[in-house]
Amino acid sequence: MDNNMLNFTVGPVMCSEEVRTVGGEQVPYFRTSEFSELMLENERLMLKFAKAPQGSKVAFMTNSSTGSMEAVVMNCFTLEDKVLVIDGGSFGHRFVELCELYDIPYTALKLNHGQKLTEERLREYDGQGFTGLLVNIDETSTGVLYDSEMIGEFCRNNCLFYICDCVSSFLADPFDMEHCGADVMITGSQKVLACPPGISIIILAPRAVERVTSRKVKSMYFNLADVLKNMERGQTPFTPAVGILRQINTRLKEIDAAGGADAEIARIAAQAEDFREKIKDLPFSFISESPANGVTSVHPIHADAYEIFLKLKDEYGIWICPNGGDMKNTVFRVGHIGYLNLEDNTTLIDALKDMQKKGFL
Amino acid sequence: MDNNMLNFTVGPVMCSEEVRTVGGEQVPYFRTSEFSELMLENERLMLKFAKAPQGSKVAFMTNSSTGSMEAVVMNCFTLEDKVLVIDGGSFGHRFVELCELYDIPYTALKLNHGQKLTEERLREYDGQGFTGLLVNIDETSTGVLYDSEMIGEFCRNNCLFYICDCVSSFLADPFDMEHCGADVMITGSQKVLACPPGISIIILAPRAVERVTSRKVKSMYFNLADVLKNMERGQTPFTPAVGILRQINTRLKEIDAAGGADAEIARIAAQAEDFREKIKDLPFSFISESPANGVTSVHPIHADAYEIFLKLKDEYGIWICPNGGDMKNTVFRVGHIGYLNLEDNTTLIDALKDMQKKGFL
Repeated sequence: MDNNMLNFTVGPVMCSEEVRTVGGEQVPYFRTSEFSELMLENERLMLKFAKAPQGSKVAFMTNSSTGSMEAVVMNCFTLEDKVLVIDGGSFGHRFVELCELYDIPYTALKLNHGQKLTEERLREYDGQGFTGLLVNIDETSTGVLYDSEMIGEFCRNNCLFYICDCVSSFLADPFDMEHCGADVMITGSQKVLACPPGISIIILAPRAVERVTSRKVKSMYFNLADVLKNMERGQTPFTPAVGILRQINTRLKEIDAAGGADAEIARIAAQAEDFREKIKDLPFSFISESPANGVTSVHPIHADAYEIFLKLKDEYGIWICPNGGDMKNTVFRVGHIGYLNLEDNTTLIDALKDMQKKGFL
Repeated sequence: MDNNMLNFTVGPVMCSEEVRTVGGEQVPYFRTSEFSELMLENERLMLKFAKAPQGSKVAFMTNSSTGSMEAVVMNCFTLEDKVLVIDGGSFGHRFVELCELYDIPYTALKLNHGQKLTEERLREYDGQGFTGLLVNIDETSTGVLYDSEMIGEFCRNNCLFYICDCVSSFLADPFDMEHCGADVMITGSQKVLACPPGISIIILAPRAVERVTSRKVKSMYFNLADVLKNMERGQTPFTPAVGILRQINTRLKEIDAAGGADAEIARIAAQAEDFREKIKDLPFSFISESPANGVTSVHPIHADAYEIFLKLKDEYGIWICPNGGDMKNTVFRVGHIGYLNLEDNTTLIDALKDMQKKGFL
């Protein structure tokens, strides 16, 4: 099934040959020094690529990134906090739901789909007693990139604990964890890391390490103190997705050998720019006021977005990424992450042109 | 790394060629009818192999089995319950810790390492107002199999909600969910399912479905009502480990084609029996009074168990499964699950004989 499909979704994305080869291998036993070394190498490379401050730690979680969002909210905030949530799409809104669920006082800074977060807008919340901020730095549902540096400055000025979910932005958009001052960042294996889904990664800056290790959390699986304690020796409290962690290791070394984070970000930026240039004569408009590199949100002017998704899948062997909820019929997304190149963009554009010729767009 | 190792651990275990091939493929986009069909086929086969009653449902969770143990405890029990926990090893004890964490009233029925649960012992808890029972039917830390039918009868007589964690027992030991009356059973992808770790599977009988869908749980990721609602259309609330779910599909069909659950259980029973016969002239004793088919717990009479694990790994290319905690130096385990055959047993026994000849045992 599906083996020759061209995949422009935002995850799972296409893997390199090397990552796939590891996926085809036997999965080793993992309570060994060999696996511990691999995990510690994964940690070192993640910290390097995120430009994390000295003393930061990495938690490799066997769950989706939503599980990590929940773990971070549970471990970092309490009823005593007052959290500002950037709520501009379905992923930002998930943080709102998590605050509700855990009775964490919050205010949602609502943005329309596609809307940029301006400094002016953010400054309205200056000096109002907030203690933390939650943001999906790339609101993946609409492809809007918020400014991690601007938000970081706001957090610094207001002494906020800054949680920056970079799920589909990590290694796609510039991010300097130390410089922007994020306390926590989250990403997933199936985004720019271009591995199968199943692992989510949380980086904790020293202040976050201190916070999660000094508090009690009512969870066994999402107990980050326990995860960090095991990670000191390159292990996890429970059996992790060992195979995916080995694929991540291959991929991180691949990125490192190709020039590191900046080179990968430049590659994805070029992939996005090429697509946006090639599509501009077709009957589509863009949604995002501040486009992220990892994904472009596209509104078909005459046609139904979900029908385009189905037609590309069934007749052209191409997956684009449909939207859910109210955007299902009006917006689709095209990812620029994973093992894609500029020719693949041409293949997609040719398919869309063919659909146009046949009167479908 | 590690690609030619012979793996006798209890997970991750060795995969078939077919399952590995799927692991080497691109991971498809999953919000499609094609993936939904695959998930519904996974559900049908899991229900068939567990001999689950009509109306049972399956939750495919992207987390370790401990995550599912936690999810089940959270979703099924409250402060109003009084739960009997079979606590005969580290996995049974994890249920005790979960009851502690969630303030669920419980009594631990303590058994020594290796000790069988007798009907006499269990009947001591008759008529004491319990509302539920938690058991790891194969206490994997010592290879003790408890009697799911006997426990089921006790639960029926006392009207208990019966949660049967079959992590390493499912498809290794006979299990009839309908007949024994279990309300919930749990297993993991990396046990007899012989796929990479990353997915844990929960089967809920109708009474459990009713219970989890009618209650509120303080969790987003472990909200089983949400998982079941999505599973009606073969989907999951959040991005699952799609690649492993595809491997599970291949494996379930493989088992089905080879004669189903009973044939796989017979194969593993023969694998265990062969090992226990071959090892009997070597200086080891067995730990379990009631050995499970999936794993044999072995006590070296003269040598250090962990040293044997290291030596087999480093000098013979064989993984056995070390124990943790107090048993680290006195017990190791040999798994009989996954893609192993009788010749592999001979290879392991020959290595042990060689170690004996060299004066190491």
